[in-house]
Amino acid sequence: FPSRLPKVGTTVFTVMSELAGQHQAINLGQGFPDFPCDRDLISEVNTAMMSDRNQYPPMIGISELRHGISDKISTLYGHHYDPDSEITITAGGTQGIMTAILSCVSPGDEVIIIEPAYDSYRPSIDLAGGTTIAVSLITNRDQHNQVDSYAIPWEAIASAISTKTRLIIINTPHNPTGMVWQADDLDRLAQLLQNTNALVLSDEVYEHMVYDGLCHQSVARHPALASRSFLISSFGKTYHVTGWKVGYVAAPANMMREFRKIHQFNVFTVNTPMQYGISSYLKEASHYLELAAFYQTKRAYFQAGLKKTKFKLLPAPGTYFQCVDYTGLEIPQSTLSEFDFCTWLTKIVGVAAIPVSTFYDKPIESGVIRFCFAKQEQTPSNALQRLQTL
Amino acid sequence: FPSRLPKVGTTVFTVMSELAGQHQAINLGQGFPDFPCDRDLISEVNTAMMSDRNQYPPMIGISELRHGISDKISTLYGHHYDPDSEITITAGGTQGIMTAILSCVSPGDEVIIIEPAYDSYRPSIDLAGGTTIAVSLITNRDQHNQVDSYAIPWEAIASAISTKTRLIIINTPHNPTGMVWQADDLDRLAQLLQNTNALVLSDEVYEHMVYDGLCHQSVARHPALASRSFLISSFGKTYHVTGWKVGYVAAPANMMREFRKIHQFNVFTVNTPMQYGISSYLKEASHYLELAAFYQTKRAYFQAGLKKTKFKLLPAPGTYFQCVDYTGLEIPQSTLSEFDFCTWLTKIVGVAAIPVSTFYDKPIESGVIRFCFAKQEQTPSNALQRLQTL
Ligand SMILES: CSCCC(=O)C(=O)O
Ligand SMILES: CSCCC(=O)C(=O)O
Repeated sequence: FPSRLPKVGTTVFTVMSELAGQHQAINLGQGFPDFPCDRDLISEVNTAMMSDRNQYPPMIGISELRHGISDKISTLYGHHYDPDSEITITAGGTQGIMTAILSCVSPGDEVIIIEPAYDSYRPSIDLAGGTTIAVSLITNRDQHNQVDSYAIPWEAIASAISTKTRLIIINTPHNPTGMVWQADDLDRLAQLLQNTNALVLSDEVYEHMVYDGLCHQSVARHPALASRSFLISSFGKTYHVTGWKVGYVAAPANMMREFRKIHQFNVFTVNTPMQYGISSYLKEASHYLELAAFYQTKRAYFQAGLKKTKFKLLPAPGTYFQCVDYTGLEIPQSTLSEFDFCTWLTKIVGVAAIPVSTFYDKPIESGVIRFCFAKQEQTPSNALQRLQTL
Repeated sequence: FPSRLPKVGTTVFTVMSELAGQHQAINLGQGFPDFPCDRDLISEVNTAMMSDRNQYPPMIGISELRHGISDKISTLYGHHYDPDSEITITAGGTQGIMTAILSCVSPGDEVIIIEPAYDSYRPSIDLAGGTTIAVSLITNRDQHNQVDSYAIPWEAIASAISTKTRLIIINTPHNPTGMVWQADDLDRLAQLLQNTNALVLSDEVYEHMVYDGLCHQSVARHPALASRSFLISSFGKTYHVTGWKVGYVAAPANMMREFRKIHQFNVFTVNTPMQYGISSYLKEASHYLELAAFYQTKRAYFQAGLKKTKFKLLPAPGTYFQCVDYTGLEIPQSTLSEFDFCTWLTKIVGVAAIPVSTFYDKPIESGVIRFCFAKQEQTPSNALQRLQTL
């Protein structure tokens, strides 16, 4: 039978984690912490299980958790989402993204994405029968030809918008670059969309990882955007439990209605004890407010080590990723692509990373790879020792 | 923006559970147990969390669990599925169903379903752009015009099959009737599909709930079917943890390859500690082998009580559901449809049930509703007291 996704292989995060496993490399590829989560959080989940909270929760998620999310968003970003009609708990951010895309994109519709882009966007658009229009993030360079900042490609976006545009997908803080949108970026987007019917999908799963005094600019801060956006977030990244697969989507009621029609027949509902555990834990705001400081320290440690290598650091103002340029290194002739380089780095050097080229439909080979620094100190310390030999 | 599923509302299971909650009715509607799951199972999950198994598992599921499933299927049904290339862990049976449909049905394809049918099939086919061809299960009646058995509508299926048929969805034990396929049913299906390109999706989530000495006839027992089938099952139903949302899909490697392309961008992966907990628990076969006896006792208790009411029992050879005919009852004139009757039963009598008409695209009103008997004794006992007053 014909493939629905003929061009798709296995996601690069799985490919690189498997390769790292096979070669016992230090895995700085796929984004996940290697340190323990808080025992209090585990204990809340265990309490929920022991209290017999093991059957189907409501399809939209448990009330306590939806209220907690609504309160958090109001407090941090000033927009009130109605917990009953505007918030749904999902089996992680990725499930929220695919379900949102399937709920609003019809065959013939166009969807704008900004590359480099998370690899689930395009196949989800394909499945919905939509057409992906990709524009490229702008990378500004200093006098030494080093990337010193990123910028949204406003002109390309303006040209890409048409009457067929159903959706634009944005992602801040941005995976893989760490780029963080500013308030005037949101203004500019709102202005561009003003006279269109385009919706926005805002992937904000790294919302609590923003450094250097920057602020996370959620679409929930911007009424004209909030009224047309699916806001996606995830607890896995925030609470160091990427394997628990609990996230959420917030959107205006008319959009949420369509989202839920599909959600109910996709996963139907999301793990009950994890929802209770997370909802108790969410009550203590410091659990997410302290995250930026926690990760900024890890970033500083990793960056200091990288500065002693031949890799050149790219700006990394958000997420738990650090991109580096490896074009100054002496490497085997055979490593022609970023993917080859990462394979070599994993097998021979013993450090796994993600080639940034795989975040593009037509790989752009700029000699940049992505490391994850969500690790206990020993991990980057060991990895840096190996990287410093290159 | 135009709805992708204009005819779809909220799933009846959610609607009736909410109504039951609002009116403090005894909930025999949505299918879930109201008794505790085994503490040993909880303790395995807690151990996994405390052992820091909280990050992303492999995309296809943890190896231990996939091997356990492969062994179970081999032992019970005689077919060997390769744990690495032919089994994937899903976030429940429903996610497996939607993902399987999205992975093989393209616009223009036809999919055959047998009504009454679980309500996720048709919207999933719609989303894939396929056309649903529904045939009706045959209900045989005795001389008192009471349903005494069910039969697969072979002639209707044979006429429905065309060169456009991509998939046929079967479900044994069957929700809502409890009907159980026999070995010759599988033979017949295999024969019908012989010279076609049609695949099979076999929803077997109630595989361990088969009574009266009958045997579950998995497609995995039938090589000619196994080689073209997605086999779907769920641990939620088997281990009394419907809220944990862990299930699996088994299929030949070429079908599984397409399944995983979508799975990885839908949920990406499934809850890690639950997978570890379940994989330990799966080692003890009695945990699923004893299920049929356990539920047959509950069914006997519930049926004995129902015989003292004016409801007429329909055959219920499998699942944890009992369908009843209410046309012999004196009921308010206003309850014209099964849905109205269930609403009245919930609000006024205080017992929630599911109208079987909602398992049809064009509701067939035959005066039949579905009760769930997966309850501790006090629950049906209380419900029966109320039903006996009618
Ligand atoms: C869901 S894949 C792994 C996590 C991630 O988002 C990433 O590594 O970019
Ligand atoms: C996923 S909805 C509830 C369970 C079920 O399958 C049913 O009640 O039929």
